[in-house]
Amino acid sequence: MHSIDPAAHLARVRETSPLIHNITNHVAMNSMANVLLAIGASPAMVHAREEAAEFTALAGALTINIGTLSPHWVDAMEASAVAASETGRPWVLDPVAVGATRYRRETGARLLALSPDVIRGNASEIIALAGQAGGGRGVDSTDPAEAALEAARRLAHQTAGVVAVTGEVDLVTDGRRVVRLRGGHPLMPRVTTLGCALTGVVAAFVAGADDPFEATVAALACYAAAGELAGEVAHGPGSFAVAFLDALFHLDGETLAARARLEVDDAP
Amino acid sequence: MHSIDPAAHLARVRETSPLIHNITNHVAMNSMANVLLAIGASPAMVHAREEAAEFTALAGALTINIGTLSPHWVDAMEASAVAASETGRPWVLDPVAVGATRYRRETGARLLALSPDVIRGNASEIIALAGQAGGGRGVDSTDPAEAALEAARRLAHQTAGVVAVTGEVDLVTDGRRVVRLRGGHPLMPRVTTLGCALTGVVAAFVAGADDPFEATVAALACYAAAGELAGEVAHGPGSFAVAFLDALFHLDGETLAARARLEVDDAP
Amino acid sequence: MHSIDPAAHLARVRETSPLIHNITNHVAMNSMANVLLAIGASPAMVHAREEAAEFTALAGALTINIGTLSPHWVDAMEASAVAASETGRPWVLDPVAVGATRYRRETGARLLALSPDVIRGNASEIIALAGQAGGGRGVDSTDPAEAALEAARRLAHQTAGVVAVTGEVDLVTDGRRVVRLRGGHPLMPRVTTLGCALTGVVAAFVAGADDPFEATVAALACYAAAGELAGEVAHGPGSFAVAFLDALFHLDGETLAARARLEVDDAP
Repeated sequence: MHSIDPAAHLARVRETSPLIHNITNHVAMNSMANVLLAIGASPAMVHAREEAAEFTALAGALTINIGTLSPHWVDAMEASAVAASETGRPWVLDPVAVGATRYRRETGARLLALSPDVIRGNASEIIALAGQAGGGRGVDSTDPAEAALEAARRLAHQTAGVVAVTGEVDLVTDGRRVVRLRGGHPLMPRVTTLGCALTGVVAAFVAGADDPFEATVAALACYAAAGELAGEVAHGPGSFAVAFLDALFHLDGETLAARARLEVDDAP
Repeated sequence: MHSIDPAAHLARVRETSPLIHNITNHVAMNSMANVLLAIGASPAMVHAREEAAEFTALAGALTINIGTLSPHWVDAMEASAVAASETGRPWVLDPVAVGATRYRRETGARLLALSPDVIRGNASEIIALAGQAGGGRGVDSTDPAEAALEAARRLAHQTAGVVAVTGEVDLVTDGRRVVRLRGGHPLMPRVTTLGCALTGVVAAFVAGADDPFEATVAALACYAAAGELAGEVAHGPGSFAVAFLDALFHLDGETLAARARLEVDDAP
Repeated sequence: MHSIDPAAHLARVRETSPLIHNITNHVAMNSMANVLLAIGASPAMVHAREEAAEFTALAGALTINIGTLSPHWVDAMEASAVAASETGRPWVLDPVAVGATRYRRETGARLLALSPDVIRGNASEIIALAGQAGGGRGVDSTDPAEAALEAARRLAHQTAGVVAVTGEVDLVTDGRRVVRLRGGHPLMPRVTTLGCALTGVVAAFVAGADDPFEATVAALACYAAAGELAGEVAHGPGSFAVAFLDALFHLDGETLAARARLEVDDAP
């Protein structure tokens, strides 16, 4: 594998400002939009089944997040995922708390069957989505990312896509390649929906990218770098959230290159 | 036209603290409520068709924002707009991304037929609502406000109301009078739903005002001044959002008068 | 009554990090989640009737907030409240603007009949829920907490539970005991949904507590102390919201003990 250049991906996002269509949960909508604006993308939240699929065809990429469900929304999620595939747009699945209830497990399975280009979740969610035991009780992970490596590989093979497991160390795989990323800050899990918003950033990086695997790694590298920078000035989770948006907005290629700590594992 | 005194309007809002009923999108609800509280109004978000119209009759003004739609909500929007008209309360329409899908165009047309007292949108939205070509792809405008002047005039005549087109330069018209406002800050479009929240501020200023046109101009002048003040201390979009609420809260008549840059065009 | 030790309750919440299931309004979801994370709990927002009751059985406590209603949500609220009672989990009712419309009054009455373990509202809401005159026009209270003492006592007897009335001075009663708390900051009502988020904190403190009355008092004492600390560094409502999360996160037992100003009234 040639070396991954996160800065080049960031430059492309800022230059193209892709429109990202998000069907995401109610808790995340506002912060996800702010994160996408800070990184240079153009977010839109559209979830009515009367218009979702039509809107997907206008966007550069789609995210589907199952954090707060309802039957009408699940209809819109499926229609938009189909529209994305049919019109050649990548889509990213965020299986929030997919193991917690039967309704979530069923919805996760229906969406998984539509082969997301990228899946982004914490270890408990990736393990639950792959149908393994464990899977956590709520939205916060009870497992480290590494525990989900085999589940991630299996999902990547099943979807012919990319799987990103985020945690203290992040892990990205396309079934063959594996990259581990270090960085970020311990306050990140104390700010709600930063993970959900990251899924939007992954979509912004994957939109128009040649290699979704590399684009996903680049998105995670930006997030980790901005998290480190924010942690250097924050006094707690409130000021961290503010500093994180400022850091994403100002993140430049040089800082990113200096902060990115990728460990590539190319073995089959 | 006698000269417009934004400070007098601001003083009235703070004195009367009008209850503003908002049927607004999911992304905007929290920030819109905070903006309304900061300026001195009392916000309420109520969108169930089982109660929306009844609630409108308790409020000083109503806002309807089509950012995140569903059939139940559209029913509530129409019922509340009718209730506002019947009980003599002004209502303000925010046609978010009205040109993007058929469902939005239809909903926009249905609400427009109920003659909003004020319409507040970006240039792409105003152009799309007036049924012209163009109209942007998502929620962010691709046109400057000036490009929407004729569309705004036409809508103002059609509704016998006021139309505000916001952008780098804002533009307000009642079909005859035109005011242009400068101010604000380049970070404002990088903070999500500041435009949606402005629609709430317009409603707060129009509630109980003699002249909705002047009240709308005053609301926009406050926003522009607070945006300038926030821009002087912000380090990025995260800290801008925080500073903006602080600035709105502390905005006084003297600062407002010194910052307001209105250009009145009274020609027919 | 033995003396109440808020610091011991705070330590228990941080140690156990209870999962709090919230069916709450759209405006509050994000800030409520952040407040719960800052205090050390694990929040989850789940409101689909297809899964809400199932999720309740996974959680340590449940909150139900009627701020933004719809028939599907009311179904989920009732099912979750029943599930909480059946599985021995405490649940907390937040009757937002319960007096404003017929739909709210009916929903409030249906939930009240399910005997919440704690009710947390402002004076206008408590008065309205108890079926008395008054009750405010919107979500902001028009009465001081003391005016709701008799209504609170009546509700406490009716539910065999605890009632907390929050305002400039807070008031907690279980029908017999009454505690008044001072503290907080005048900017608190200028930040949206801080009251809603407090309901979540009450749930986090009541989860696993021996005495829900004392746990409720402890939750309010933490909030008041964090509000005071935030007020010392804030410049307005924007920076207050940020500083408040930082203060909650860092709040320690010593500071809490020094700041808590409880006045216990044990007379029958």
